[in-house]
Amino acid sequence: MLKKTALLALSGGLVLSGIAIGTQDSETTASGKPDWAGQGNGKVHNVIYMIPDGYNASYATNYRWFKGEESSFDPYVKGLMQTYSADTEVTDSAAAGTAMATGVKTNNGMVGVTPDGEQVDSILDAAEEAGKSTGLVATSTITHATPAVFGSSVESRGDQALIAPQYFDNGVDVILGGGRDYFLPESEDGKQPELNLVESAQQDGYEYVTDLDELTSAKSGKLLGLFADDAMAPELERGKTDQPSLADMTGAALDALEQDKDGFFLMVEGSQIDWAGHAHDAAWAMNDTKAFDEAVAAAIEYAKKDKNTLVVVAGDHETGGMSVGSNGEYDLNIDVLHDVKATGDTMAAELNEDRSNAGEVLKEYANIELTEEEAAVITEADDVASAINEVISDRALVGWTTSAHTGTDVPVYAYGAKSHKFSGLLDNTDLPKLMGEAMKIEF
Amino acid sequence: MLKKTALLALSGGLVLSGIAIGTQDSETTASGKPDWAGQGNGKVHNVIYMIPDGYNASYATNYRWFKGEESSFDPYVKGLMQTYSADTEVTDSAAAGTAMATGVKTNNGMVGVTPDGEQVDSILDAAEEAGKSTGLVATSTITHATPAVFGSSVESRGDQALIAPQYFDNGVDVILGGGRDYFLPESEDGKQPELNLVESAQQDGYEYVTDLDELTSAKSGKLLGLFADDAMAPELERGKTDQPSLADMTGAALDALEQDKDGFFLMVEGSQIDWAGHAHDAAWAMNDTKAFDEAVAAAIEYAKKDKNTLVVVAGDHETGGMSVGSNGEYDLNIDVLHDVKATGDTMAAELNEDRSNAGEVLKEYANIELTEEEAAVITEADDVASAINEVISDRALVGWTTSAHTGTDVPVYAYGAKSHKFSGLLDNTDLPKLMGEAMKIEF
Repeated sequence: MLKKTALLALSGGLVLSGIAIGTQDSETTASGKPDWAGQGNGKVHNVIYMIPDGYNASYATNYRWFKGEESSFDPYVKGLMQTYSADTEVTDSAAAGTAMATGVKTNNGMVGVTPDGEQVDSILDAAEEAGKSTGLVATSTITHATPAVFGSSVESRGDQALIAPQYFDNGVDVILGGGRDYFLPESEDGKQPELNLVESAQQDGYEYVTDLDELTSAKSGKLLGLFADDAMAPELERGKTDQPSLADMTGAALDALEQDKDGFFLMVEGSQIDWAGHAHDAAWAMNDTKAFDEAVAAAIEYAKKDKNTLVVVAGDHETGGMSVGSNGEYDLNIDVLHDVKATGDTMAAELNEDRSNAGEVLKEYANIELTEEEAAVITEADDVASAINEVISDRALVGWTTSAHTGTDVPVYAYGAKSHKFSGLLDNTDLPKLMGEAMKIEF
Repeated sequence: MLKKTALLALSGGLVLSGIAIGTQDSETTASGKPDWAGQGNGKVHNVIYMIPDGYNASYATNYRWFKGEESSFDPYVKGLMQTYSADTEVTDSAAAGTAMATGVKTNNGMVGVTPDGEQVDSILDAAEEAGKSTGLVATSTITHATPAVFGSSVESRGDQALIAPQYFDNGVDVILGGGRDYFLPESEDGKQPELNLVESAQQDGYEYVTDLDELTSAKSGKLLGLFADDAMAPELERGKTDQPSLADMTGAALDALEQDKDGFFLMVEGSQIDWAGHAHDAAWAMNDTKAFDEAVAAAIEYAKKDKNTLVVVAGDHETGGMSVGSNGEYDLNIDVLHDVKATGDTMAAELNEDRSNAGEVLKEYANIELTEEEAAVITEADDVASAINEVISDRALVGWTTSAHTGTDVPVYAYGAKSHKFSGLLDNTDLPKLMGEAMKIEF
């Protein structure tokens, strides 16, 4: 359903010369050309690499309608990126991240190593080697596959306790995300490392923070922020916690990293867009995209002022086979997602044993009056969270084809100095190589 | 399933500087920069507007694996285009075509008019007005929605008999496709116009052709080619006919149009990619994409030699919610589509009344040994052609979410003079405006 106000909001981003630009980006360069392309030819001192895990053009389109205007990075789309791994057309996040971090394709499941198990350096390692400060930010455990490929090498992505100490060995200066259990001994679930990594980090000069307030007042150039034992809260439910947003973490990371006059490399992952896609949880996907959008806005704002910063945004693959419209209708009702206040998992946990309160739970958390048919779907499902998500997706007319990833090309966005180098049809292995060239460092 | 040979073929298109280019496009410009971006700054004398109806990044990715290498236009991707219509987020081809032809958004179902029914001129009209010759080529009836928007204005896309005479009134010089019934009186199904449009066209100087041989030997600058009573054959089954391919028609159109020294505007539609998407017929989609790819190759070849030709490629919307991989698997088996030799419709028509010969039909036309479960799906289906297509799509791991269109952004590709103007996030209404600016004509 297309509301006139939404249409006007989107149209507001167009200029008559025919190029669509964000209203927030109407400034022009010295030549009088709009700055939309971000074709700065300045030197690249800093790189901010933003990865919305699982994001492609369908997520971008659904999110634009959800938001009512263009995302902060929509105007800077430069081309498409191929995502296949060394062993299959449909990559997982470990192989995708390895390609995007090291420039080497590997098999699904492998982190920072070739298919033969040989360790390879990442663009973060190269930046570190060149004297720059480096950082990793994510809303998953910070030892999850995508951040892991930048700061560690292990044969299996499951070895998160082996990944954490490598971050310190590799000199990563800013580490912000979830996954406290992988840094502390004697954590309840047996994930603990041999040493207390938090204490050793503090002895090594890291400032350690655990909530938004502590993060906001942090001053050090070396920062360890662990805001949850396991993954951080989905953006939908973050209000119930004292955790920082992805934009908060990005801002804090920039404050810490810019203290190094040699420049920096920062990777920021919107980790849970992918998890929402696996779950077919459209509201979770849109809200975590919102968190990511705000983080990119902070990065672009920084690059706009700095002039020597390159911002690159690219998903590592698509998740779920999401579509804009579904079930034979020429329509989209994305607005129903604005009323959803919890993930499908959370709603499922609120059901009583016979699920007789399904109507109340869906009314409370999603403002939905279930039809009899929908109530039956939820009551009889083997996987009740999935059933809740399908009911909501069907109402929003958001379609899905798989519980796994898909292999479609994903858009690449770039802003700032040397951003025009990221144009055309790229491969995922091209991105770190182009960043190395842009920074003029050995890689 | 990723075969090493396919991987090498795709990798062959990469160069170490990090930019992915087609192996066929390794020539460099005077500055030493690869010509992949097609950022020619020559004058635009001619525009070739190629529209793969229903095509997005997922079709592009599946087709790249189907072909084993990049498509002729893959390397020239410039950005993404929004496709929504005036009344909904999910456009039909009439409203999408109107936007792409006239620069005005209208409601679904309307052709070349505003939502209020006011007629608007197309970029073809403007080119005609500027003294250029003009042409329309499609594999549908040539009076179908997408070509219709360029050369006619009617309130309903169903009025195909009203569309045909307008092409001549509007001075379209080259008209090639299906739909003979809309040009001849006394056709069997009552679609006939009042006049014999073929005879009046011939009196007006058009050369009239009806098969590949006649098309190949045509000499006139004004050409009417009607190769089927209704739609042309799907590319999968064209071998059984004497019809030209889309590349044959494109080449013949260019030969005719270039006789005008004032330049030309040509629109070429790969019409049936969309129909295949509606039917979830993955083999039809891939083979009609192949036909379109070969037509674009001919257009790019022409632009390469001419230097003053702009080629723009963009789907009008996505169809079917196609995905690359499906059903929870991290894999794609697109190669099974190479063995499919007919559309699902054709296979359905070969079934006997109780469908007991389903196994033989699928073996003959798709080289598939049906499992018992698959045979049951086909035998018991309400819509047997759909069931056949779902069986084949499931084997190929190509997913679908809808029988209709979807609203996802589609890639925009451009090659040749002024092609860099088509970069970034565009709206479908931007394309004709940018073409008008490129040709420096009033629009």
